[in-house]
Formats: sequence, structure tokens, C-alpha cells
Amino acid sequence: MSARSDFLALDARSSDLAERYRAVREASRALGSHLSDADATVQSMPDASPAKWHLAHTTWFFETMILKERVPGYRVFDESYNFLFNSYYETVGERQPRARRGMVTRPSLEEVFAYRAHVDEAMDRLLSEGPDAEVAELVGLGCQHEQQHQELLLTDILHLFSQNPLKPAFKDPGPVAVEGGEPEPANFVSFEGGIVEIGHDGEGFAFDCEGPRHRTLIEPYRLSDRLVTNGEWIAFIEDGGYRDPLLWLSAGWADVKENGWSMPFYWEKRGGDYWTMTLRGFQPVDRSAPVTHLSYFEADAFAAWAGKRLPSEAEWENAAAGVPMEGNFADTGRLRPKPAGGREEGTGLRQMFGDCWEWTRSAFLPYPGFKAAPGAVGEYNGKFMCGQFVLRGGSCATPPGHIRRTYRNFFPPEARWQFTGLRLAEDG
Amino acid sequence: MSARSDFLALDARSSDLAERYRAVREASRALGSHLSDADATVQSMPDASPAKWHLAHTTWFFETMILKERVPGYRVFDESYNFLFNSYYETVGERQPRARRGMVTRPSLEEVFAYRAHVDEAMDRLLSEGPDAEVAELVGLGCQHEQQHQELLLTDILHLFSQNPLKPAFKDPGPVAVEGGEPEPANFVSFEGGIVEIGHDGEGFAFDCEGPRHRTLIEPYRLSDRLVTNGEWIAFIEDGGYRDPLLWLSAGWADVKENGWSMPFYWEKRGGDYWTMTLRGFQPVDRSAPVTHLSYFEADAFAAWAGKRLPSEAEWENAAAGVPMEGNFADTGRLRPKPAGGREEGTGLRQMFGDCWEWTRSAFLPYPGFKAAPGAVGEYNGKFMCGQFVLRGGSCATPPGHIRRTYRNFFPPEARWQFTGLRLAEDG
Amino acid sequence: MSARSDFLALDARSSDLAERYRAVREASRALGSHLSDADATVQSMPDASPAKWHLAHTTWFFETMILKERVPGYRVFDESYNFLFNSYYETVGERQPRARRGMVTRPSLEEVFAYRAHVDEAMDRLLSEGPDAEVAELVGLGCQHEQQHQELLLTDILHLFSQNPLKPAFKDPGPVAVEGGEPEPANFVSFEGGIVEIGHDGEGFAFDCEGPRHRTLIEPYRLSDRLVTNGEWIAFIEDGGYRDPLLWLSAGWADVKENGWSMPFYWEKRGGDYWTMTLRGFQPVDRSAPVTHLSYFEADAFAAWAGKRLPSEAEWENAAAGVPMEGNFADTGRLRPKPAGGREEGTGLRQMFGDCWEWTRSAFLPYPGFKAAPGAVGEYNGKFMCGQFVLRGGSCATPPGHIRRTYRNFFPPEARWQFTGLRLAEDG
Amino acid sequence: MSARSDFLALDARSSDLAERYRAVREASRALGSHLSDADATVQSMPDASPAKWHLAHTTWFFETMILKERVPGYRVFDESYNFLFNSYYETVGERQPRARRGMVTRPSLEEVFAYRAHVDEAMDRLLSEGPDAEVAELVGLGCQHEQQHQELLLTDILHLFSQNPLKPAFKDPGPVAVEGGEPEPANFVSFEGGIVEIGHDGEGFAFDCEGPRHRTLIEPYRLSDRLVTNGEWIAFIEDGGYRDPLLWLSAGWADVKENGWSMPFYWEKRGGDYWTMTLRGFQPVDRSAPVTHLSYFEADAFAAWAGKRLPSEAEWENAAAGVPMEGNFADTGRLRPKPAGGREEGTGLRQMFGDCWEWTRSAFLPYPGFKAAPGAVGEYNGKFMCGQFVLRGGSCATPPGHIRRTYRNFFPPEARWQFTGLRLAEDG
Repeated sequence: MSARSDFLALDARSSDLAERYRAVREASRALGSHLSDADATVQSMPDASPAKWHLAHTTWFFETMILKERVPGYRVFDESYNFLFNSYYETVGERQPRARRGMVTRPSLEEVFAYRAHVDEAMDRLLSEGPDAEVAELVGLGCQHEQQHQELLLTDILHLFSQNPLKPAFKDPGPVAVEGGEPEPANFVSFEGGIVEIGHDGEGFAFDCEGPRHRTLIEPYRLSDRLVTNGEWIAFIEDGGYRDPLLWLSAGWADVKENGWSMPFYWEKRGGDYWTMTLRGFQPVDRSAPVTHLSYFEADAFAAWAGKRLPSEAEWENAAAGVPMEGNFADTGRLRPKPAGGREEGTGLRQMFGDCWEWTRSAFLPYPGFKAAPGAVGEYNGKFMCGQFVLRGGSCATPPGHIRRTYRNFFPPEARWQFTGLRLAEDG
Repeated sequence: MSARSDFLALDARSSDLAERYRAVREASRALGSHLSDADATVQSMPDASPAKWHLAHTTWFFETMILKERVPGYRVFDESYNFLFNSYYETVGERQPRARRGMVTRPSLEEVFAYRAHVDEAMDRLLSEGPDAEVAELVGLGCQHEQQHQELLLTDILHLFSQNPLKPAFKDPGPVAVEGGEPEPANFVSFEGGIVEIGHDGEGFAFDCEGPRHRTLIEPYRLSDRLVTNGEWIAFIEDGGYRDPLLWLSAGWADVKENGWSMPFYWEKRGGDYWTMTLRGFQPVDRSAPVTHLSYFEADAFAAWAGKRLPSEAEWENAAAGVPMEGNFADTGRLRPKPAGGREEGTGLRQMFGDCWEWTRSAFLPYPGFKAAPGAVGEYNGKFMCGQFVLRGGSCATPPGHIRRTYRNFFPPEARWQFTGLRLAEDG
Repeated sequence: MSARSDFLALDARSSDLAERYRAVREASRALGSHLSDADATVQSMPDASPAKWHLAHTTWFFETMILKERVPGYRVFDESYNFLFNSYYETVGERQPRARRGMVTRPSLEEVFAYRAHVDEAMDRLLSEGPDAEVAELVGLGCQHEQQHQELLLTDILHLFSQNPLKPAFKDPGPVAVEGGEPEPANFVSFEGGIVEIGHDGEGFAFDCEGPRHRTLIEPYRLSDRLVTNGEWIAFIEDGGYRDPLLWLSAGWADVKENGWSMPFYWEKRGGDYWTMTLRGFQPVDRSAPVTHLSYFEADAFAAWAGKRLPSEAEWENAAAGVPMEGNFADTGRLRPKPAGGREEGTGLRQMFGDCWEWTRSAFLPYPGFKAAPGAVGEYNGKFMCGQFVLRGGSCATPPGHIRRTYRNFFPPEARWQFTGLRLAEDG
Repeated sequence: MSARSDFLALDARSSDLAERYRAVREASRALGSHLSDADATVQSMPDASPAKWHLAHTTWFFETMILKERVPGYRVFDESYNFLFNSYYETVGERQPRARRGMVTRPSLEEVFAYRAHVDEAMDRLLSEGPDAEVAELVGLGCQHEQQHQELLLTDILHLFSQNPLKPAFKDPGPVAVEGGEPEPANFVSFEGGIVEIGHDGEGFAFDCEGPRHRTLIEPYRLSDRLVTNGEWIAFIEDGGYRDPLLWLSAGWADVKENGWSMPFYWEKRGGDYWTMTLRGFQPVDRSAPVTHLSYFEADAFAAWAGKRLPSEAEWENAAAGVPMEGNFADTGRLRPKPAGGREEGTGLRQMFGDCWEWTRSAFLPYPGFKAAPGAVGEYNGKFMCGQFVLRGGSCATPPGHIRRTYRNFFPPEARWQFTGLRLAEDG
């Protein structure tokens, strides 16, 4: 267990599956320990799920996909949970409608923890017996799946708490000093492009949509060496960025007008100052930190305003090839993006991992040769390949060890409640 | 405190204001004791409020209308609660939007109980000092107000629990035997009418909309001596009552089609049998008990089908004049309507009080000479005098001592989550 | 045929049914003659109907209720019209959904005129043969029905034209001079009340909801001798009437906020002046004329602001007993309300008929003893007895001879596109 | 002017700009001549526009972008038309809200034709004087723009007529014989791929989004030599294609359930047979003809069911390189897709142009190096690059000469009212 954090303890490099399973499960439990029964139950919008649901659904995954199928004599904890905690697997039967997940005040958070313990015990036994390859693969998938839900639990709780006029903090604010003035101007790093390979090569775990690895052609391009900052975003606001339709995609401009967008999600202006809701409570905006909680529309409009563009996912992945997968992930406990430090040697790219997910200009579509896996597991990603954009690099709410250079996160262009930001690109 | 109930303890005839205050407050607390923090927090629809909100809002009423105004040195429990727990008093400032009351996971139920204790202590002190007439009147109003919210707490919890696939019981089902076959046919009791007086005469507490007492003219009429039963409702269903547009008001028929109404709210058909969600859990429908959870539209359509009509509120109040205010109220702990027993001597009218609210054909409008009180208290009822129908007589969720012969409850014609039923009438 | 108008020609006192039929039908045709095929086809909102639909539906009524039933060998003009031009008679079969009436670009207006001619010819033949009592009654109903639709045709066309940025005039504006300053202050006329009779007594035509005639009890009251004026309404606006929630019913205040109401429907402020859309085109508001195009909510809020109230329908009808049924109806061709002239002798009440419909505080509910007629004709009014308020007295778009002292018009409280205004009342 | 058609007369190869202008304008006029004033005015859904609007808006384009800017002394036909007939150019000022285009009953269709004549006269004069290069380019753009609207006029009229229970025909059905049984099975043609160039090279007219021409990498692939037929689609229906969620994208499945999709748009089942609304009236489905009026979701689900996939736009464009731009376009007057004839020599690909637009799997996104043009013209396509899919090849409603191999049409994945079909692809 990492000494850096009292609540997220995941050693992604563990070669021991049982240990990895335990670490992932413990990290979820630790997140849940910050919450009351009520906190864990309420659903603040249809796109979000209750924390209790995240904790139970990830457990249901192991029970349904592994224990019920493969462990003779396994006693199901509660038959009704299959209905309650299935997400969207049409193949696995009926389920509680998504928009009504918050109606489930019972079972309580405590009972959900008991459910977790019951499943963990059976999984421990199974894993100690030396699982076969198929089980090992499913356990790996289940751990990745649970880590995804850890991140969603954090973003969904932030959304819930933002709706409460008391603006409670998920975690004690602690000494969240504003780090100082603006960082030095961004520097653009050049890449040659050409025929490159992107996508997962099948070694180790990856979600189905990350493959197959394939060739693609990229023209020369340049990438900013850091994320766009709050300070730069304030310049955009104050230059009228939210009022000029020519900067915006048509659907984005409709959202601006219909919803009255005038700053990032969670921001408020009090007096002359910008404040924002965070997992550490309501805080002044730090001008030097990366801007986050942006829709694709906002990211795209900013890029137009700046005379740049968003990178494609191939450009991003190609550039990330040599960059270590380190950064401000959930295990730092910071739970909000961090200002870029001094420039690093080597590629010169900073903040490629962690801090906030980076919107790309790529629609989330199947790679050439992609085929969805058969059965329930195949419902995983392919069915969402429409109307969404790809994000890369992970965020301050992503568990370390969950990210990969090939990782394709995706959200609809209007989504703002994730830790989403941007990095600028331009033709080379 | 009544020996009949372990959770509702209100002696309405208490002449001691302090004792009455305590009894009402204790009854709310007892209701809350059946609930978890999560149960008490979730809002299952915009028309319903969280139990925690009911418990805090009634407390806020005493704090705002009495303690803050009249007790020098009173320490407000938490300044933020004025925003959180104001309901709709435009005069008392901004408030949490109604549809987002369920976002308030904090304060917890426990903290709300502490808020209640804090206010109760100050109120006890005030009441022990002998309050003046104005305070006494406000305390009386506050108690009546809290009793209203006790009933709403019960109906709102029933709605919440009905949304949970596990269909939890608010209270242990216990021996809720189905009481047997159909009751004897209804008997119609005749009334002469003429110029009668209805409305509250100002003696003792009443809500503003119950007065002034005034003369009205009623033609001769007849009233059924009991409520319509589930058995009779099943006959209506099976005769195609929900499929014949000529029985329905136009707006009601639109609701039938749009929402697929085919039986009362909370009913389900399993196999050949009718079941219903209740505060005692999911139960078979008792054919001999009064039908409940009906919209005005359904009550009106049933009356048309039966060749009768609904009574006016004047007819109902005139008939109730000689009937004792006794019945199956919340203190029996039954929490669902009860079959009519044998006919009583005297007026012959049964089930006039308790069991379920009776839809009348009267729109909720001001009585002749009605004037809303000035200030916040005046926002109480007058502003809702549009688009609603009057119900009379109280229900199995109404605290005893809360009902009056002049009591005018009101709901929109499509509302179904209250304990609403009907009694037939016809011209004399 | 009245010499006063070139387009509305109805002598209501005609004792000759055939002549009456012809006059009513001609009046509709004359209205239609102001319209292009496109004007007559478009539906500007679900509550409105295309003019072509009004012209065809009223014709369908005669064809379906009389010719098809009672004239052997009658050749139906077009079988498809039963589907197209039925309104809401569930008993007469399927029909074009109300909200899609505007999709019917064919048949053209010209074909609809041919349909009218075809039916008129058959009706003429039937009426010349001396119809029996039942037919005579249906013809009378059909004429009243058609006159209702004449008024709706006018109000619906006004709505349509108001949506066109060019703001076309239905009829040449002509010399619509603003008549001068404010009229003298309103005078309140006293009435004793007591047990009075209201409702239709069955002599001559009336809609079913106007009866039966019955006794009711009224307390002493006073009625303003004229309608509220635009000038008085501007005072209400400028005193903040649209910004003070305490003046408004709760549902009305919600409409004010949601829809941004700040003046009557069709009004606009240009420079410092109020303008309004009318059937005579876009015109400055005449301060001395009655205010119109108000919701019930606005009328009620104004009365609260003025320290008065709206009259009940019984009060209105009782007061109207001695007033001649004369006024500014559609046949004057003015097509907008007219300033009250000097006070008349006698009752002193002015503008009781014509100019604009007067909102009453009475919900539209069945009178004691009301029974809907059996069959299709019985669907006429009873099914709308829910959620609407009664209006009395007719308007500048009402055909003369269509109004009666017992006439009960009704609209939902938020409706604003009719010629709706108010007269103040107070307790006597 | 083509002898093949009495209403669409466009020689795309004309080198004479004036002649081209005249031909395009005449084609629009000819389309309008089939319509009544009412037909041309009604807007049947927010996505569609009235025919009159199409006829006026295209005229407004020439007036605003050319005549007002470049012809001294040009007299604007009607100043109010700028408001009425602007589409979405934020830079050109306020405009009639899109969803209310159908409120504009005046000006009439006749006046719009007069507007067209007025503008045509001025344009003729300008063009006869030998326009400069900039004007020539704008005229070319205006002609292309008008041709787009010709197609939309046809698809919008089809939608309007489908809403009319009488199901009128835009054009006399004539001898639309069903052509016989199923065509021979599809044959898959192989392509090598590699680094290819796609996109417009700047020679001749193209919309901005078609360029720049650029290199892209395609892996080997195979394309069906014809479109999917109605017969094949019926097999999909009858195999339960609309009932199996695993075939569908998640958003598509939601649409299936919410809207009850069970066959292509405009289809109905009567008795055991499939019928469909067409521009030639209501007709039996021809099993041998290409299926059309499909959403992307349906096309994608069909491909999954068939074990194939949709082509990417690069694959389609690469394959189209050698195919003549000939096919069943609007000028044939057929106005519905036509069965594939016998296989052709050469590439073997049939129906690549005309019949129906082919959904590709490519999201509509900017090509590498794309930059929107500055000013109003730049609002043309770039602002829609979000949430839409590319379609290729034109349809039976596309004017000949309007299509290009590089042409990128785009619609949201749920759109069904265009002539949209599909061609299958698979990996090589």
C-alpha cells in the first residue's frame, strides 16, 4: 500500500493477480469510507450513478462473470442484486433503469460493504487455488473495470456535492495553496509523423476498443508541452470567448445559449474572483493549474480562439510513445489538477498523464479491423461508438496503473463533469 | 400517549400547549426512527420531499416564525438551514429548488435530529414561560403544519419504497390478514339540504382556507354510507372502465393513454391476482377494503360508470356534521385503509374520517369572503387556489387530532400518491 | 343581413331556420375570403387550428350529424374527410391528431369551399322540406357550433399572424384612431344577492353546460360598471405587478417566471411605447380601451393588486339579467375592444356584452343536476369540466346572436390568445 | 435542357456561367410548380423547411452575397426578407427561428416567384456583363447551394406529404411497375488500399469541407457491387433485426425502443405486404430496389447482422475513382431508387452515384489541414463537424452535376427522411 495516500492503494505493477485484486478492491472500499449512507445513495443526474451503485456493480461483475459461472457451489449473496446492479448488459437480463438507480435506498452502504466482503472471500479462495488463464483474464478485466468505476465514483460524488448548497468536501481541503502566478508560455514540440503504429498490441491487458494495433498516416505536427491553464482560460472568457458564435461548433453554440454557459462547469464568480467546486471543497481558481471540467465544445472553441486546434488521438498516442506514464493520478490524494512544473528534458512534453483527460479531435470509432468480443463482455465499448469524442492520458481521479498510452476514454461532446481539459496542437 | 401505537403519539385534545407541542414533535421523531439516513434523504419525484426535509422543514418553521422573531438571544442552529429548508415562502428568501431537495445528503439524518432537539429545547423554554396569544397561535399553526408533513412523510416514503425493486416495508407487515369477502352493498343516506352553513367558525385552530363560515344552498342529495371498495374497483377494471373514453374527463383520458393507467397507482397484476405496494410492504389487494391511490380522474370515471357522481364539499361537510371524528387514522398503526365494519346507528355514515381522503367534485377555490392573511403565513393556502380539487375526511396516514369537519385538503386531479379514494353521491 | 359589415352577416333573431343556416354559413365563408390557401392551412400552435380546418370541421358536423344519418341517398363529399375533420368525438372514430392538423395542405382552401357548397346544397334541400324537430334542434346546435368556430378562426388567425415577423393584418387597419385619454374612473354598482336562479331554462337554444336552471345563494356584492382598461393595466405593469410574487397564484407565478411574462400577450414595447398585434395589424395600445389577451392568472393578480376580486359567474349572470345583449361584437367589423362610452341609465353596467370575455373566479364545473347528453353530442362540454375557468359576455370576435346571458365559455387559466379581459368585483 | 425530364433541367457541364445559373434556377422553379401555396408554406418538422423557404432562401443567397455587395444601385426586393430567409448565418444578422419557418404564410408562393424573377433579372444583367473571378466563384457556390436545397425541397415535401392521411403524390405515379424479383446476390469487389489521396484538389467547384486533398492510409478491403435491397431488408426485419439489441449501437437501440422503429421510415405494413410513401405516392415496396430512408443506426445494425461493415469514406472515395458519375439522379424524374441492372464491365461497382446516399462509418470531421473560410461563407460546413456521419454518392433526389466523387454529405445518425441507404464492405 502506497505511503502517499490513505485511500487509494494500488500497485499496478504487481505481478500477483490475487494481490492486485485485493489492492483494487481495497482502493474502492477506501473511497467509500469517506461517504455516509446518504452520500452513497443519491443519484444527482441520469449520467451519474450513486457511489453505492459503483461499489456494488463492480462486485456484481466478479460475481456474475466469474463466481456464478465458474465456482461450483458458490452461494449468490442476494438474488435481487442481479436486477439492481447490472449496468447495461442486455445479455444478462433486466435491470434497474439507469435514471432510477438513486431510488435504491436499501440495501444500505453497510450491506453493500458486506456484499463486497462476501464476494472478496470467494474470489480470494478462487485466486489462491491458481486460476486458469480465462479466469485470470476476467479478473484482470474486472480490476480494470473497477478502476474505471473508482474514477466515476469520484466525478459523480463531486457532481452530487456541487448540487448541495453547503458544498461539502469529499476530502479535507488541507493546505491547498494556490501555487502562484502564471506558468511560462507553452512551448510547441514538433513531431515528424509518417506511417506510424497505434493501438494496443495484445500484450497485457487492454480494453477491446484499444486494438487492434494498426498503421496510420500522420502528417508533421506540433504539440504544446503542457495543458491549457485556468489563467489562459480566464483570458478566453474575458476576451468574449463565450459570446462569439464564430468560435463554436453549431451544436456547441446551441448549448452555450440554452444553458447559459459562461465559464467551466463548477465555476462561479464571487465578487471579481473565480471560484470552483472541487473534491477538496469550494476553492478559488488557481490560475497556474490546468483548466478542467470542459466540454469538447469549449475545448474546440478555445483552440479556435487561440488559432490552434486539438490533436488527433493518433498524434497524441504517437507523441506519448516516449513519455513515462507518471503524473498526478488519484493516488497523490490531491484530487485536482496540478500546475505544470519546470520543463523536462527529453521529449519536453509535460502533463501527458494524469491531471486531466485531454480532448482529442477524434470521434470514438472502431479502429480498422476491430471486432467486438462475443457475449456480454462484447457489449463493453463497441456499442458506444457513435457521437462521442476520444480523450487521452487520464486525470487526477484516475487510479495509477489504470492508464495506458493506448487508452481511449470517450464522452459526448457536451459532457463536463469529468476531469476534462485540453492541450493545443498545430500542423507541423 | 396512546397505547395503540408505538410510533404516533398525539393527544389532540390536550389543553396544554407545551404538551401538545411535545407530542406532535415526538410523533415526527418516531416516524423518522423507521428510516435509514439514505431512506430519509432521497427524493423520489419532484412532488415528493425527502423525509429528512420534512423533519427539518417543520423545525425550521418554529425556528423562523417564532424563535428568531420572538426569543431574544436565540442562537440559530445553522444559518445555512434557512436556504435548505424553506419550502415556498417567497417572503422568507431564497431556497433550495424543490426538485433538488434530494441533493442534500448533508446534513445527515442524525444532524437533523440534533437540529430538532436544539429547537425543541428553546421551544420548551419559551412554552414553559407562558407564551402570549400570538405565540400560542403560531405554535398551534406549527403543530398543524407539522402534522400535515407527517402525513406527507408517510406518502412520500411509500412512493420512494415503491420505486425500489426490493419493495421494502416501512413497517413490519405483521398479521395483515385479508379480511374476507365483499362487504354488503352500499346504502345511500338521504339529506334534505337547504341553506346550510359550512366553513370554520373561528373557534380553535383552522387553516385560513377553511373559513369564513358562510351560508350556502344545497339541493336534496344522498350519500353512500361507505367508501368504494377494492372489489368494486376490480369490477370497474374488468368491465373495461379504463378503456372507455366516454367515462372520462378529457384531461383524464389523456393521462390514461399517455401513462398507460389500467389500475390504481401501486397496483400490479401477478398471475391472475392484484397486488399493491403499501407501507406494510407488497401485499395482495383486499377486496373488502376501500380502494385508494386514485386520481380525481379515476374517481370521477368510476362514479360515471356507476351511474352516480362525487359529492360536493358542501354536501360532504353538511353530512359530516353529526358524525364523530373517529376512524382509522395514523395512530392505529395500520397504515392502510380498513374494510367498513357493520353499519352504525344514527346517521348511518361510516368511514367518513380516516381510511382515505375522499375526492369531492369541488374545485379548491376561496370561500365567499376569504382573505389571505398578510405576510409569510398568508402564503399558506390561497396561492394554490387553482387547478386542484378538494378532498375531505383524512386518511390512514393522517394524525388523529389533525382532522376537522371543515378541513379542506386539495390535490391536482392527476395526483395518485396520496391515500385518496371516493364515496359516491346522487341527487336526492 | 346587417349593413354594418361586409363579412359577418348573421341575423340571430331570424325565425326561419333555413335563413339562419344560410346566414351563419355565409359569415364563415366571408371570414375565409380574407385568407390565402397558406393562411388557411398553417397551425401556429397545438391549441389553435387552421382556418381551413374550422371551415371544414363545421361542415363535417352538418354532414355527419345530420346528412349521413337522416338523408337517404346523401352522397358523402369525400370519405376521407371524416378522418381529417373530426375534432375530438371519440364516438365518431379515429381522427387526425390535433397537433398535426396543420399538415393537411390538401385538400386546398378552394376544395374546402367546394365541400361547403356541397353540404349547403343538401342542407338547403333538407331545410326547404320542413325538417322535423330533432333535425331542427341539430341544425340549431350546428349553427351555434359554427359560430363558436368563427370566433376561434379569428383568434387562431391572429395568433398565426402574430408569429409572422411581417405582422400582416387580417383586415385593413382603416382609421383605427386611438380614442383619447383615460376614461373616467370605474363606478361600482351594488347588488343585493340572495337566493337567485341562474342557468338556462330550456327555452331556445343553449349548450348543455348552461343548464339546468337552478337556485344558488349569493351574498351582497358590487360590480365595476366597465372593463379594466389598457391604461389601468399599464399602471399595474409600471407598479411592478409582474414582479411581485405575492400578487400571484402559485401556478401563475411559475408561468410568469418560466415564460418571462411582463405584459399582455401580443404586446411589445417599442421605445417607450406599448404596441400590440391585432386583427387590424400591429397598432399602438389604446389606453382607453379594455385590456385583452390576458390569462386568468394575470386577471387574478391584477384584482389582488387593485384590492378587489373577480366576480363569480353567478354574480355576473345575476347582474346581467337586466342588461341588453348589445355591444361590440364581430359584426361591427372593429375586431378589437372599444373604449367604454358614457355611463348608461338603468343598471349602469357597460360593456357586459362584446369587447372581451370576462374571466370569472368560477371553475368550469357541472351545475347541480347536470347530465351530459348521450352519444356524440354529449361529448360536447362535460368532458372539459376540469382545470378551466368560466368566462362570460362574449367578445369583439363573437358573432352577435351567439351570446346568451347564461353562456359559459371556458379556458385554462394560462390561455392568452382569446379576447380575454376582466371586470372587477368586491363584497357588498 | 435534358429531354429526359420536364422539371429538372441542369446541364452541369455547361461552361457558360450564365447558362448554368439559368438552368439551376429554372430547375428550382419547376419543382415549385408542382406545389400549391399551402404545400409550399407548411413546415412538417423542425429539421425540414417549407418549399417556399427553400425557393426564397436560395434567392436571398444571391441577393445578399452578390447583388447587395457588388451591384451599385441594386434595389433590394423587400428589406424584410433578410430576416425571413437567412438560414443560420450568425454573421448576417437576426433571422426567423428555424422551428418557426412555417409561420410565414405571407409572402405567398407567388410573391416568392416574383422575388426570384427580380433577382434573376439582376443576376442576368450582372452575368451578361462578364463577372470577375470572385463573382464567378460566388455564383458557382450559389448554384451548388441551390442544388442542395433542391434536394432538400424534395425530401422535405415527401415528409410533409407523408404526414397527410391522404398521402398525396408530389408527381403523378405513372407506370411505376415493380421491377420483378430479387436481384442476383451482391458481389464483393477487392481493393488494395495503401497510401491514397482523397479530397478535392481545388480544380473546379467544391465545398470547403471536401478539401484539402491529402494522403491517407487504407488497408485492403472489399466493397459490394450494389446497394442493399428492400428484399434483403425484409429478410433482416423478419429475422428479428429490429428486436436484437446486440446488433445495435447503444444510442440506436434507445431510438428503436423509444420510437418503436420496426421498419424503414415511411414504410407501413398493410395486410402481409410492405408499402411505402414516395414522391410518386403511396406504393408497394419493390423488393429489388435499393432500400432507403434509413438511419445510420439501422444501416450499421444491418451490416452487423450481415457479418459485414460499412465502408469508410476514404474506402468509398478510393473505389469511386474510376466510376463514371452517372446514375439515377433527380433528372430522371423517377424520384425513387431503381433496381441495379446487370453487372457492368470494368470496376464492377454499380449504383455508386444516384439512387440513395450511402452511409459510411466515418464521422464528419475536418480533413487534415482544413481551415474554414473567413466570414459568412465560412460558416458553411465546419460548424457542423460534430455528431454527424458522412454519406457519399448522391441520390435519386440529387440534381445531376451536383455530385462529385469527393462530395461529403452528412447527417446525424438518427436522420431518416433523406434518401439514405447502404452498401456493405469488409476487410480485404
